[in-house]
Amino acid sequence: MTDAAPPSPPATTPAPLFEQAAIAGVGLIGGSVALGLRQRFLARRVIGYDANVDVLHEAQALGVVDEVRATAGEWLRECDLVVLAAPMRALAPLARALAPFLLPKALVTDVGSVKAGIAAEMEALGVRNFVPGHPMAGSERGGVTHARAALLENAVWVLTPTDHTPLTALSRARSLVEHLGAAPVVMPPEAHDSLVATVSHLPYLASLALTHMVARDERLSLLAAGGFRDLTRVASGDPRMSRDMVVENRDALREALARFRRQLERLEEDLDQPDELLAAAQEGKRTRDSLPVVRRSLLPPKHDLVVAVPDKPNQIGMVTQALGAAGVNIKDIEVLAIREEGGAMRLGLETPEDVRRAADILAAAGFEVRGRL
Amino acid sequence: MTDAAPPSPPATTPAPLFEQAAIAGVGLIGGSVALGLRQRFLARRVIGYDANVDVLHEAQALGVVDEVRATAGEWLRECDLVVLAAPMRALAPLARALAPFLLPKALVTDVGSVKAGIAAEMEALGVRNFVPGHPMAGSERGGVTHARAALLENAVWVLTPTDHTPLTALSRARSLVEHLGAAPVVMPPEAHDSLVATVSHLPYLASLALTHMVARDERLSLLAAGGFRDLTRVASGDPRMSRDMVVENRDALREALARFRRQLERLEEDLDQPDELLAAAQEGKRTRDSLPVVRRSLLPPKHDLVVAVPDKPNQIGMVTQALGAAGVNIKDIEVLAIREEGGAMRLGLETPEDVRRAADILAAAGFEVRGRL
Repeated sequence: MTDAAPPSPPATTPAPLFEQAAIAGVGLIGGSVALGLRQRFLARRVIGYDANVDVLHEAQALGVVDEVRATAGEWLRECDLVVLAAPMRALAPLARALAPFLLPKALVTDVGSVKAGIAAEMEALGVRNFVPGHPMAGSERGGVTHARAALLENAVWVLTPTDHTPLTALSRARSLVEHLGAAPVVMPPEAHDSLVATVSHLPYLASLALTHMVARDERLSLLAAGGFRDLTRVASGDPRMSRDMVVENRDALREALARFRRQLERLEEDLDQPDELLAAAQEGKRTRDSLPVVRRSLLPPKHDLVVAVPDKPNQIGMVTQALGAAGVNIKDIEVLAIREEGGAMRLGLETPEDVRRAADILAAAGFEVRGRL
Repeated sequence: MTDAAPPSPPATTPAPLFEQAAIAGVGLIGGSVALGLRQRFLARRVIGYDANVDVLHEAQALGVVDEVRATAGEWLRECDLVVLAAPMRALAPLARALAPFLLPKALVTDVGSVKAGIAAEMEALGVRNFVPGHPMAGSERGGVTHARAALLENAVWVLTPTDHTPLTALSRARSLVEHLGAAPVVMPPEAHDSLVATVSHLPYLASLALTHMVARDERLSLLAAGGFRDLTRVASGDPRMSRDMVVENRDALREALARFRRQLERLEEDLDQPDELLAAAQEGKRTRDSLPVVRRSLLPPKHDLVVAVPDKPNQIGMVTQALGAAGVNIKDIEVLAIREEGGAMRLGLETPEDVRRAADILAAAGFEVRGRL
């Protein structure tokens, strides 16, 4: 043991969870799963399967998969993990095409955003070790080009076993999700579909209905300020994907719509009972303010710091220069408020250590650091 | 004429539009109008009237008004501009208290967010030169402390004359609004109330209804991602002010609710007609994407620049340092996207000249400047 001794190489590479994984449908989510499997040593070999040969070429060129296949076949019998990652309307046909070749012991999962239908389909097909899944991650930019392992990190990934799902399969699926860096949440398919109807599909329809109300009236769009834009943002999503989601989940969505109508009716009745309406408004504010904060950035910085910014010239530059000079890398920056009397900005940093150092540096430079979010 | 000649002082101060202005209710909006009147030489003298003596003391200490009054009285007979800026429910009582003292020729206006009621009230009171108004500006922080002239700059300010409003009064009100830096939009009170019911009060109720649906179920708030947060943001506003707005405008709001229900029903029917639903989704996206962009910042930078940021350490710091070193003051900064492959950020600068200089500096430093927004 001398100072000059070279650092030892790692004694072992991590043991993979799977020997050979098939990713059926190599788009944004499928490609991100493939990358996660490879970068985190979760599968010894990752095979991309897609009906679109151009997609396969791109996936191989980008190093997303080890090998590509354009047709289902005997090669699937060597895969102990099969991930169905096609667009939702294509999932059932895809499952039917692959089923004849699946290894009985293979763990099979999917990534569709509605779960009861595919769960029933796979049971009818006799795929034993199927665990329906829904990683709640996405991006406004689709396709394998934008796939990356980080997309799935910290994402809620719902697993929806049925009464027939073997517990060993559920356990393997949960392990897969955790190893990809996501947070597994387990519930029955019907519960999942009802919940996403409420928090995702109903809001989409409500947003679409509001948007249609301002079409064909320029005065309305003139007066449509920030609040209205907030409520209609999801109406700006991909029309076909949005349509497919709500159509696939229409039964649960109809129930959510019925509950939404009852809530609206109650509020409408309260228009004649101002005290009731005030209580409803107060309760709504409490609920909304207690929702967990979800970072929009696709690489959510885990380590945030809020800095009060006085009303003087070039304060943003002074903050970033002080940190840059000390070698603290700012991953994200957000102005929370800019007003004549000053405001605040939030910095996203890489490590807790960076947060501590940045807080010290900024305090020494005379800035008030309000604390971590 | 020599180089050493001192700069001449301005030959004249601008002629004021009004001799003496009374601001009745010195909160965020009233205070901002008062500041605008003073800073832009629109009134020779600005008197603040408020039932709350503490507010008056603060307004005077902050230089928001020249003089304060805690009771209505003869002093009002010398005011040729009276702005009613109390909270909405207090507007009618305020108008009744002031009416006996108003000069017949005085221009009287208000800033309430619902217009038909106050318009009728003032007609009943016989206030001849009343022009109902609604500056569409606000802040999450209320009170005279946060008042500032800039709050009203570039804001849409709706004026809602009735059949009885003298055209000369409308013309004076329009001039007032323009001189305060806002954009007057003229329409009947009922049209205004119907429009804000659609773009503001209905979205609030819809947001509240959605929020109530996730109360008492932790799984829902776990799955509630960005889209849901967008749709429920306005439910986080001040409960009492929100309640007062929707109650005051309940007739127009009921009509908007009925139209909203019809839109939802049509979309629900389309769940069984996927082609129709796709067309609705496409039309909704077109409408939403064509809404004018509203800056959130309360001091909206008029001069923006978008910079592409490659995926390298400390890019934000490099951009701000390059501009800081050249003396370009960054007024606002916003990260539009942060991903592994890089992103973009928007800088708000002070002048068109700053935008040009910043573009040159950043281009020379190797950054791609995508253009102005």
